[in-house]
Amino acid sequence: MASYTFGIDFGTSSCRSLIVDLSDGREIAEAVYPYPSGQSGVVLAADPDVARQEPADYLAGLENTVRSALLTAAGTIDGFVAAEVVAVGVATTGSTPIPVNDTGTALALLPEFSDNLAAKAWLWKDHTAHREAAMITKIARHTRPEYIDACGGTYSAEWFWAKIWHCLNTDRAVFDAAASWVELCDFLVGQLTGTSSPNELKRSITAAGHKAMYSKSWGGLPDTEFLATLAPELAELRGRLYDSAAQTTEIAGFVTGDWAERTGLKAGIPVAVGHFDAHAAGIAAGARVGVFVKVMGTSTCDVTVIEEKDGSVLPNIPGMCGVVRDSMIPGKTSIEAGQSAVGDIFNWFAENFLGDGEALEDVSEQAAKLTPGEHGLLALDWFNGNRSVLIDQRLTGAIIGLTLSTKPHHVFQALVEATAFGARRIVEAIEASGNPLKNIVAAGGLPSQAPWILQVYANALGREIVTSRTILGSALGAAIVAAVASGEFETVEHAQNVLVHYNDVPYRPDLVATARYDRLYVEFVFIHDAFAVDGPLGRVMKNLLTIRDEATRTLLTKETTRAR
Amino acid sequence: MASYTFGIDFGTSSCRSLIVDLSDGREIAEAVYPYPSGQSGVVLAADPDVARQEPADYLAGLENTVRSALLTAAGTIDGFVAAEVVAVGVATTGSTPIPVNDTGTALALLPEFSDNLAAKAWLWKDHTAHREAAMITKIARHTRPEYIDACGGTYSAEWFWAKIWHCLNTDRAVFDAAASWVELCDFLVGQLTGTSSPNELKRSITAAGHKAMYSKSWGGLPDTEFLATLAPELAELRGRLYDSAAQTTEIAGFVTGDWAERTGLKAGIPVAVGHFDAHAAGIAAGARVGVFVKVMGTSTCDVTVIEEKDGSVLPNIPGMCGVVRDSMIPGKTSIEAGQSAVGDIFNWFAENFLGDGEALEDVSEQAAKLTPGEHGLLALDWFNGNRSVLIDQRLTGAIIGLTLSTKPHHVFQALVEATAFGARRIVEAIEASGNPLKNIVAAGGLPSQAPWILQVYANALGREIVTSRTILGSALGAAIVAAVASGEFETVEHAQNVLVHYNDVPYRPDLVATARYDRLYVEFVFIHDAFAVDGPLGRVMKNLLTIRDEATRTLLTKETTRAR
Repeated sequence: MASYTFGIDFGTSSCRSLIVDLSDGREIAEAVYPYPSGQSGVVLAADPDVARQEPADYLAGLENTVRSALLTAAGTIDGFVAAEVVAVGVATTGSTPIPVNDTGTALALLPEFSDNLAAKAWLWKDHTAHREAAMITKIARHTRPEYIDACGGTYSAEWFWAKIWHCLNTDRAVFDAAASWVELCDFLVGQLTGTSSPNELKRSITAAGHKAMYSKSWGGLPDTEFLATLAPELAELRGRLYDSAAQTTEIAGFVTGDWAERTGLKAGIPVAVGHFDAHAAGIAAGARVGVFVKVMGTSTCDVTVIEEKDGSVLPNIPGMCGVVRDSMIPGKTSIEAGQSAVGDIFNWFAENFLGDGEALEDVSEQAAKLTPGEHGLLALDWFNGNRSVLIDQRLTGAIIGLTLSTKPHHVFQALVEATAFGARRIVEAIEASGNPLKNIVAAGGLPSQAPWILQVYANALGREIVTSRTILGSALGAAIVAAVASGEFETVEHAQNVLVHYNDVPYRPDLVATARYDRLYVEFVFIHDAFAVDGPLGRVMKNLLTIRDEATRTLLTKETTRAR
Repeated sequence: MASYTFGIDFGTSSCRSLIVDLSDGREIAEAVYPYPSGQSGVVLAADPDVARQEPADYLAGLENTVRSALLTAAGTIDGFVAAEVVAVGVATTGSTPIPVNDTGTALALLPEFSDNLAAKAWLWKDHTAHREAAMITKIARHTRPEYIDACGGTYSAEWFWAKIWHCLNTDRAVFDAAASWVELCDFLVGQLTGTSSPNELKRSITAAGHKAMYSKSWGGLPDTEFLATLAPELAELRGRLYDSAAQTTEIAGFVTGDWAERTGLKAGIPVAVGHFDAHAAGIAAGARVGVFVKVMGTSTCDVTVIEEKDGSVLPNIPGMCGVVRDSMIPGKTSIEAGQSAVGDIFNWFAENFLGDGEALEDVSEQAAKLTPGEHGLLALDWFNGNRSVLIDQRLTGAIIGLTLSTKPHHVFQALVEATAFGARRIVEAIEASGNPLKNIVAAGGLPSQAPWILQVYANALGREIVTSRTILGSALGAAIVAAVASGEFETVEHAQNVLVHYNDVPYRPDLVATARYDRLYVEFVFIHDAFAVDGPLGRVMKNLLTIRDEATRTLLTKETTRAR
């Protein structure tokens, strides 16, 4: 009898379920459910920093896509029965914390809070807590530098504590009503397994370690003294969160009879501890020691794992935005890096600077024909700040070398190269820390959409790049983790050996192109370091942003005055 | 009886004649003649560096436009008769040298040379002589630094000696057949006045001083020893050129009976020594001591004059591209600076990056509404190199501060501001040399086409900018000079007092805008100096160009090989 696992991926705009054949990793059926609420699933407000989601959308997506994928599988695979699905894994966006009551129900699902934005899920890209995040960074840097070192030196407005603190500061009723706060990945696992209280919930170490400053090396979550410095209520909340987080290859619980009825799954099959989508995608692309996975989309999330050299101290690799033990593969330390804008830069250019008749494809085609260096341009890919290796949101993009002969496809090519050079900088930083990367894998949506861009990356990095076969990495990764949790495979690596596949032909660097890119990369690093905060031009981008912010404030004040 | 002068402007694509009323500067009649040969009047070749003109086009333009303007005047001004025109002035592009035979006839007009490109007029923007120019610069820097200091430290491929030397190197027959070489402005004056030999021709000090390394302080043209280092034939040619050049307010000669018949002018009226168009435009905009004129078009040419402090040595004002005694106003030293691309940058942006539906006007309108600093961008206007104050062709444009929120009108505004900051840098360099500029005048085509750009300039410079009333500055300037030459006015300044007019309302700086631009200008100067050759990033633009040139050469070699 064949066996399968379910991987369910909760993205920013939709939920997707995937059934994976554990004999060979074949993706036998999938189903998608776009969230019905808000704008493409995101509940917005007048304040552009607000980005929330309806917990009800998640539950509807879970029910719909699992049921639908099972029907598809039954219709296409001879003799398929739902009982052959042996486990379920869930991967979600994060940090997406949700306030819940003492039975684990999301406050937004209660009538008294149904219209309250603060009671909904605080989607990863909600930026309302930027002041709280800055304060956390400042205080941690002085009193608990180890907390902040593990997340790249800056606590983000997108993360767990900043958001909860902002709720405390702006909606006391919701804060007080919350028995606890749970990450989306843990919330869904709790629902599927019928965990009746947030105290009993097995919390994901991926979410805890990357977003909530959790580490065994300092005894779990931030200590109460530190939290009390932020607000006494947060120190008090700590006792209603969790003492230890669970590895993602553990079983969190078992599918309840209720959910079995709603979805068609067999009751009692195990559900793995919740996972983050980017890390799950990393697993699905074969991330392991020496294998570096780039999950490339609007931005790029890079993951790999390293051996633990000394169990007591987290390794310090400058420029990484997350160094967390056990969060991707048990027993290994996962390294997360990234580039804040990649596909977003290409889309920005196409939307703003390419005429109607001149589609992105045309310009891409022309750019793909250029020889390295031919356009004379060099760009910095900091259009949304620099996540790695400078970890500085107050950096901006730049293009140098413009002439009256510069054409749109020249600029486009230079932007692509800038992201490739940024990627090379990250690879070099990890290798410089004594962790050689034998293989580079490209995953995510970008590689299949724009093969020529991958060739630029191979040339600019001077490295072979293999591409992941799946385009549903997060869901596949969740299914792989579920297979390990349920005992179908002994380790993540064993499961990867069977379930992870690559496209046959890798992108190989052209030696002549790489030789010229090596020279351009020297200039890239030179201006990269020059505009970094401690470089000779470090003040320029900061001052431009300061002047911009003042100018914008003045305008807003004027408009407000006029409106009165 | 009223009196008038003719100003005739020979531009790159057409010739224009203007009749000016000497009582008040009124422009009473004009006529234009587009050159019929080549592409928009320019004879091109497979080599993109070639740009020549047909001398016959000039003569046809002279005859046609003068005749036509006289007819228009007669038709519109009651009682106007051609005899009321008391003098003629000519302004032309330059350096545009023409090889002539011993009677002053252009070789291109002789049957044996009619098809020979080398025998035609070598238009100012012909770049075939770039190797010769580089060699002249190199040799002069070592052996005659004073020659090169007066023209900004670099002898240009566009100038007199480089072009003649290139002719010697590439078309010996033409070089040998040339009894002399004359600048276009001198050629036309010679034709009108019937000068039968190039030896008798009064050569313009404007052309001689700015383009042929002529100065009284070293005894006229470059000495024979220096020229012999370049090529013995050039040393020999020196004797067939001229010993001293004439001020542009001198009478060069008198209109011949033949030309009177062809044009309708009165025979025997004086013709002033030839002038350059940019300098004539400066005069028409009121350039004098303390008055700085920006002739703004595709590029910007800036002119002013300073008092001579010490008659024996030319003043050294770093960053100017021409410092020549007597070339604009007798007794004063003229200062020429410039920006290699201004309107060209705006056109480049519009042509390449604005979609069909999104005309330049729309973007201009949006940009005009921005408050300074709001877009967070800073640009360098070196898209065609930097003419002043760095005098370095191997510099390129840059844009810093790009984000995913950057819109096309933000970039456009930043490009406009970059040219304004570049202008401010020039103004500050001249003032730093101890020559205060009381007034700044904008002339040329740009001010009337884009008033909001002038307002940005006023704000960015923190200075009032007045605009010249005429849009035919070069022709008006030639007419003013003719009026001085013929004795209608005692000095250029006296003539300007009567004939030069400004638009009523100047552009006045907005104090709040200037305060913010002052801060952005600090950053502009900071990156300006950082990318200058001796700045911390001085190598970057040079290396990008070197890599680009190598990449392009490799491509060309490949194509040539393939073609074989």
